[in-house]
Amino acid sequence: MMEKINIGLLGFGTVGTGVARVLKENEHEITQKVGAQLHIKTVLVRNLKTKRDFSGDFFITDKIDDVLQDDDIHIVIELMGGIHPSREYMLRAMEAGKHIVTANKDVIAQFGKDMFDAAEKNDVEFMFEASVGGGIPIITPLKQCLTANKITKVVGIVNGTTNYMLTKMTQEGTDYKTVLAEAQAKGYAEANPAADVEGLDAARKAAILASIAFNTRVGLDDVSVEGITKITPADIEYATELGYVIKLLAIAKDSPEKGVDVRVHPAFIPKEHPLAAVNDVFNAIYVCGNAIGETMFYGRGAGALPTASAVIADVIDISRDIVNETFGRVRCTCYEHKKFCPIDETKSAYYVRLLVEDQPGVLGAIAMAFGENDVSLNSVIQTRKVGERAEIVAITHSVLQKKIRKAAETLQALPVVTEIRNMIRVENPQEAC
Amino acid sequence: MMEKINIGLLGFGTVGTGVARVLKENEHEITQKVGAQLHIKTVLVRNLKTKRDFSGDFFITDKIDDVLQDDDIHIVIELMGGIHPSREYMLRAMEAGKHIVTANKDVIAQFGKDMFDAAEKNDVEFMFEASVGGGIPIITPLKQCLTANKITKVVGIVNGTTNYMLTKMTQEGTDYKTVLAEAQAKGYAEANPAADVEGLDAARKAAILASIAFNTRVGLDDVSVEGITKITPADIEYATELGYVIKLLAIAKDSPEKGVDVRVHPAFIPKEHPLAAVNDVFNAIYVCGNAIGETMFYGRGAGALPTASAVIADVIDISRDIVNETFGRVRCTCYEHKKFCPIDETKSAYYVRLLVEDQPGVLGAIAMAFGENDVSLNSVIQTRKVGERAEIVAITHSVLQKKIRKAAETLQALPVVTEIRNMIRVENPQEAC
Repeated sequence: MMEKINIGLLGFGTVGTGVARVLKENEHEITQKVGAQLHIKTVLVRNLKTKRDFSGDFFITDKIDDVLQDDDIHIVIELMGGIHPSREYMLRAMEAGKHIVTANKDVIAQFGKDMFDAAEKNDVEFMFEASVGGGIPIITPLKQCLTANKITKVVGIVNGTTNYMLTKMTQEGTDYKTVLAEAQAKGYAEANPAADVEGLDAARKAAILASIAFNTRVGLDDVSVEGITKITPADIEYATELGYVIKLLAIAKDSPEKGVDVRVHPAFIPKEHPLAAVNDVFNAIYVCGNAIGETMFYGRGAGALPTASAVIADVIDISRDIVNETFGRVRCTCYEHKKFCPIDETKSAYYVRLLVEDQPGVLGAIAMAFGENDVSLNSVIQTRKVGERAEIVAITHSVLQKKIRKAAETLQALPVVTEIRNMIRVENPQEAC
Repeated sequence: MMEKINIGLLGFGTVGTGVARVLKENEHEITQKVGAQLHIKTVLVRNLKTKRDFSGDFFITDKIDDVLQDDDIHIVIELMGGIHPSREYMLRAMEAGKHIVTANKDVIAQFGKDMFDAAEKNDVEFMFEASVGGGIPIITPLKQCLTANKITKVVGIVNGTTNYMLTKMTQEGTDYKTVLAEAQAKGYAEANPAADVEGLDAARKAAILASIAFNTRVGLDDVSVEGITKITPADIEYATELGYVIKLLAIAKDSPEKGVDVRVHPAFIPKEHPLAAVNDVFNAIYVCGNAIGETMFYGRGAGALPTASAVIADVIDISRDIVNETFGRVRCTCYEHKKFCPIDETKSAYYVRLLVEDQPGVLGAIAMAFGENDVSLNSVIQTRKVGERAEIVAITHSVLQKKIRKAAETLQALPVVTEIRNMIRVENPQEAC
């Protein structure tokens, strides 16, 4: 039996330091459970001169070859993020026979196939639990614990920044700009918040989740994306009034008839649904399978220690393989090539908020515009006055996206409609689960 | 590579049939993911004459030796429940070199050590994901996904029957008797509901969860147990009014100073906590670890198909081992012998409801009785009149169980206190997490 498993760590920022900390703090337990000692041998950093608040008995270098050419290093943990040079480093490490653990959602969502092919070819493991949902176990549960199921749907709150913002907007009535500034001040949102608020971070995670859940390759380009920038306090208020909560959801559905449908957008969800209670920076992934029915995984979607928990879980999994001299027990599971459902053919109910002339007959004209386009309404409320005008809020029944788009065009053309102020999908995650 | 993995199924009731159904329905996916076909070869039933609504290409027998002596059977799934003869059958099967998958919480909570020893000795796997939380992945997440953590606390809603009952009592104000009859009519509770309502089913699951979370053997006898039979609509009303929800919790805590503390009892939990939103027959297990922080696993805690999902996940895990010719990657993790915290030394806050004389000075006398026993109060509310008397409800700060017991004795002895109507712990699962 091997006594020591050596690790090369690429990147020593927040998460990298977290990994080193947790390995040290929980060393006794981990060694017992794995049957081997996990040892960080070499750490790759960009700048050797940067002051660090954690030190250990590892070698710090700024040369990748110190890791790649060291035959004593069994596992490489990649925590640099971004595509370059992470992707090349991981490919080269696999060619050198090293197993990979990474939290890099960008590389997986865009180059997943290359990575898995390289792992297969070089007979090494490629694991990425930390790429989705931070510390929350979701990749292993999907690949192992739920394997008996055909997964039909995954609905996730997978971006902590936007969930924090929407929670504050809901609980405190704050507007988007104020809450963004607050999130930036707390370090939850970056100076350029686009990746979070435009939904791109969530889209990468949606692609990864869908690939694993449906056993077919889903890339970032296959995900339709809409962020939270247009959500106003008025939308939040209407949602509350109508018994809903607004969340930024990563939704992936698979139906034999329509194909795979993967998207990220804000949505109204019923306030009784367990996802509605996922607040602040917490994440959760709700999964429907044909045997298990509904299940949900909840926890911290980011942070040094939670992410380290997921990274080390992968390292331990590989280490157990090393100790037992077995590899490839669970390989890439994208063995199918499923078709995608065009976005026009996807179905949702919608919340539609209109600014209209405050005069008799307006409600009728609007109802007619919906009806002409085969959009049937669940409820319509005429609400507060806005100067000389009024707002009307409608919730539709489930409808094809192309039909709601046509309905919106018809509405826009009505003389009594000043403006379509917002249109947000209404999702019931439990539906067809 | 082996092409077919043969299964012997002991018991063909609801869950057994569910397993057969799911294996058939999802055969294509499962075969792809495992790299082998999973085939139920032989099914053991008690009575060959019983009519069954599922048939397959398996041999039905009432003789256990048809399974045990068949060298072509690699995995035995035990779904008969109870201690006898399940325990003997599993031990004999392991001696015959067969891997075991079971949902049998009774055997594991009482004879776990024997089972693991037998697995170790015979070099076979012994897996039991379905024994806790039905379909919810929790054993594998604890043993694998969260291995990097020191687990400090597990708080679970692990009994669907009582959760259904408490949910109805909360949402509809129904009393205990009525809701029990309702649960029995729906098939959620048995004619003799003791195992559920007295907390014994939850206690078995608590023992299993604690053993795995804390890496030390916890048996049923180590769990202190209290059921939900004393919960009244009045308690539910006060809970709601004070911002809490009453749940039957399985709580396991591990502290280096005090030891391991495992108990099952009803408790007030803050209504904002994610466990508070777990309603009806759903289960959830909330886990705190020193790296991951908080995480929660949610889903259906019972039912044929959800339980089958968990059973087959274990079968697939073992099958992947068989295909890859490796065993014992993850063995029994009870490598420590931790001390237990005596129940008197456990700490909780308490809700105390008293029926008292409706006269001046009563509140003072009561506050003094608490104070004399070092129990400090968080809040006291004097509430509705009950005939000539009144009810007083107090919430204490966190206090040692032995002190609250003494305080209760002092209160009972006060002339102004007619009756202590109920005492229920107040838990904040998030505390010290």
